[in-house]
Amino acid sequence: MSDIDAFAEAALQLLGPRGFTRDGDIVEPWLTDWRGRYTGRAIGLASPASTSETAELVKLCARHGIPIVPQGGNSGMSGGATPDDTGTAIILSLRRMDRILSLDPDAMQVTCEAGVVLQSLHEAAAEHRLRFPLTLGGKGSATIGGLISTNAGGTQVLRHGTMRAQVLGLEAVLADGSVLDTLTPLKKDNRGFDLKQMLIGSEGTLGVVTAATLRLLPEIGGRAVIWAGLPSVQQARRLLLHFERAAGNSLEGFEVLPKQCLKAVLDYLPDARAPLAGEHEWHALIELVSGPDGSDDLPDFAQGILESAFEDGLLDDATIAANDSQAEAFWLLRDSISPAERAIGPAMQHDISVPVSRMADFVAAALPAVEQRFPGSSALAFGHLGDGNVHFHVLAPGDATPGEWEDGEGKHISAFVHDLVTEWGGSISAEHGIGQMKRDELGRLGDPVSLALMRSVKQALDPRGLFNPGKLLPLAQTGVKP
Amino acid sequence: MSDIDAFAEAALQLLGPRGFTRDGDIVEPWLTDWRGRYTGRAIGLASPASTSETAELVKLCARHGIPIVPQGGNSGMSGGATPDDTGTAIILSLRRMDRILSLDPDAMQVTCEAGVVLQSLHEAAAEHRLRFPLTLGGKGSATIGGLISTNAGGTQVLRHGTMRAQVLGLEAVLADGSVLDTLTPLKKDNRGFDLKQMLIGSEGTLGVVTAATLRLLPEIGGRAVIWAGLPSVQQARRLLLHFERAAGNSLEGFEVLPKQCLKAVLDYLPDARAPLAGEHEWHALIELVSGPDGSDDLPDFAQGILESAFEDGLLDDATIAANDSQAEAFWLLRDSISPAERAIGPAMQHDISVPVSRMADFVAAALPAVEQRFPGSSALAFGHLGDGNVHFHVLAPGDATPGEWEDGEGKHISAFVHDLVTEWGGSISAEHGIGQMKRDELGRLGDPVSLALMRSVKQALDPRGLFNPGKLLPLAQTGVKP
Repeated sequence: MSDIDAFAEAALQLLGPRGFTRDGDIVEPWLTDWRGRYTGRAIGLASPASTSETAELVKLCARHGIPIVPQGGNSGMSGGATPDDTGTAIILSLRRMDRILSLDPDAMQVTCEAGVVLQSLHEAAAEHRLRFPLTLGGKGSATIGGLISTNAGGTQVLRHGTMRAQVLGLEAVLADGSVLDTLTPLKKDNRGFDLKQMLIGSEGTLGVVTAATLRLLPEIGGRAVIWAGLPSVQQARRLLLHFERAAGNSLEGFEVLPKQCLKAVLDYLPDARAPLAGEHEWHALIELVSGPDGSDDLPDFAQGILESAFEDGLLDDATIAANDSQAEAFWLLRDSISPAERAIGPAMQHDISVPVSRMADFVAAALPAVEQRFPGSSALAFGHLGDGNVHFHVLAPGDATPGEWEDGEGKHISAFVHDLVTEWGGSISAEHGIGQMKRDELGRLGDPVSLALMRSVKQALDPRGLFNPGKLLPLAQTGVKP
Repeated sequence: MSDIDAFAEAALQLLGPRGFTRDGDIVEPWLTDWRGRYTGRAIGLASPASTSETAELVKLCARHGIPIVPQGGNSGMSGGATPDDTGTAIILSLRRMDRILSLDPDAMQVTCEAGVVLQSLHEAAAEHRLRFPLTLGGKGSATIGGLISTNAGGTQVLRHGTMRAQVLGLEAVLADGSVLDTLTPLKKDNRGFDLKQMLIGSEGTLGVVTAATLRLLPEIGGRAVIWAGLPSVQQARRLLLHFERAAGNSLEGFEVLPKQCLKAVLDYLPDARAPLAGEHEWHALIELVSGPDGSDDLPDFAQGILESAFEDGLLDDATIAANDSQAEAFWLLRDSISPAERAIGPAMQHDISVPVSRMADFVAAALPAVEQRFPGSSALAFGHLGDGNVHFHVLAPGDATPGEWEDGEGKHISAFVHDLVTEWGGSISAEHGIGQMKRDELGRLGDPVSLALMRSVKQALDPRGLFNPGKLLPLAQTGVKP
């Protein structure tokens, strides 16, 4: 019996048939990331039912030298949950661990297992007239563990921060199978290093998140959703500052998109219509919310802010959604940009950020720079202006061959965009993480001091490199022989 | 020439006479913590003028094997900035590095060197009609670097979080003299581990913080300060929940104190008077604030919340400060508890936290438990109920001998309190840190998995143990021979 077979038999013994399988039909869907960019191989799929089973499995893997690829909803954007093609690793799925363990409405805290799906958490909070203030497109599949491991963002970061800001405590299995448990939330605790912070955003390379305690907020009383037309992205930045000053804590989101994006969406969605008459170079989608008791004043409040913005010449035109379904229609336009664009043809997509104060100038400078350097390509930027985070997409020339273009000119375009954003003091990964997709680019452009420090931490916490090898860390081990 | 003399000569060469001194008269004040509990010895006092000087000094110390004790305002509460008594270390003062490097009013961000005093930062922000939302008693001496290294709290944590929540980026010198620079603030940046989080709260054991970028907030428009009389601490908890629900983001502080504390303060401050007529078992000091444009409605808003609290039977009596000077007078009562108590006699002070939802029950159970176990002592608790953080003080019996009592029965009392708080799932250090004062208690009561992980991180980042030896980490090296 090979070492791998011996391991597999022991894993089956430990987890039972529901907890460990090598059945190709069951394992196969989890070997490819949801975008279909990466496919790997694996010894099998482990799905422990509890933290203690996870800890025992990690110990077993350590004994046999088996690498572990943790996986939540498999809806990540950077291939961080897909194994490499050596077939020497297991996929450790947390999806069976999907219980909400406790919810304290007074303390506004929820403790849940890592496999709880974001949408389920939203629903559990809503039952108590509370809300979890983070959402994103993949909410029907993304799990809490995955969201923590990638420090996920979304459309509410402007007001509520990324996943890091929501995590009050967590539980994780470490490389030796010990369990770090900081689930009991203390608002103030200065007993040394805040160890949970290391796990958040570490993409499964330092430990396996098994549970978390998260903050909740009171449900929204009302919301006002505004669509504004603007002459330039710099003007959008001025409008953002105006809203930040005037709306304060009520400002929940501020998204921007250029006219090309709106056109692509209107072509793509048969029933959609433009919120404003006339053509505008840029558009802003702005959401204000009020607390549970403050819904009555919100429309007047929003109207007042808009009127002063008009008086200051900050926008061309704007409209406030008349009701909830119109508000949803506005957001649908924003959320449909990615599929609409995919329908047009191949594109290189970049999830980048620069300092908020430089975002508008960066976009204005970078779009023509890319199009000039790569004739025939068409660059556009949209997204979270309030966070300095813009999705920067470059569409292939009309005569490009899909597949070939991405691997050829597309790679040069990405390197060019990453060089640009680095020059501007920005990040080559604003919210999607590094995974396997950007690992080499991080090695090329990352700060050497930061990279050395990350490698030291990785070496200290996972000296044998068994947690998610080949992800995140440039030059990390890509597999360990048993 | 001894190794130490050779080091000192090289340090003088590097930093000049303003930057390095062995003059006893100059060094001596910094060898004792401000509370006078700990006194150590040192080779000398290094005061570099820049990050690059600090980096060169750290390299020099590494070459000579000289331990480094970083020090800001020397106003810490746990002896974390005081060297041990071997005299083999240097004090590295950041106080000369006190420049505000930039302040961006639009982005509401400030970048400053580590030696900037908190009060100066408040003033710099106020010039731009902004504020830095963290304050504490030592604001006239506490430095930004020290506040970051101890993850300082204060009276605004309920609404704005600890220092960790204010830090957008930082710069630190690492053990090999390399400089980690994350000063450029990106709201979203998922390029791997968030390394700055490791430095925050690490009490100078992992690196020397040399600069930081911090968030600012709009100045306060108005505030309403309420003093309430209550029958019990449990009732104070109910009142807190009422205010959290009704006031939402306006709730800036919620402090509690028992009648004994108020009496001690009234005895101590000659001109002070009780805010309410009649006697109440417990008192709450509540502050609501409004944004720059919202000051007009605040008194009515506060009055409305109070009235509904009365209707719900949540309090005995309450008053709203009629003007700013009365508000200051209310806060002076709160801020004078510590000196008032010191005037009474010796006391063991404990800076502890438990989960917010259990705080009131903990206080109600722990106070009599201590007094029963240590007859003649008198226990009281006051502080930040909204954060689950209470300053738990035990006063010596009237016949105790100061000095002797602290080192004898006092130590047993502290161990008893720490045992209790650990049983309740709490922290033996809510906001003051571990330093040298609680290092052994952390070793005794800390979670073994957390301690092992902290030691791994320490070993990875400072393998020779030259950064602040003997602090924070139980069993850390207490000195390295050159």
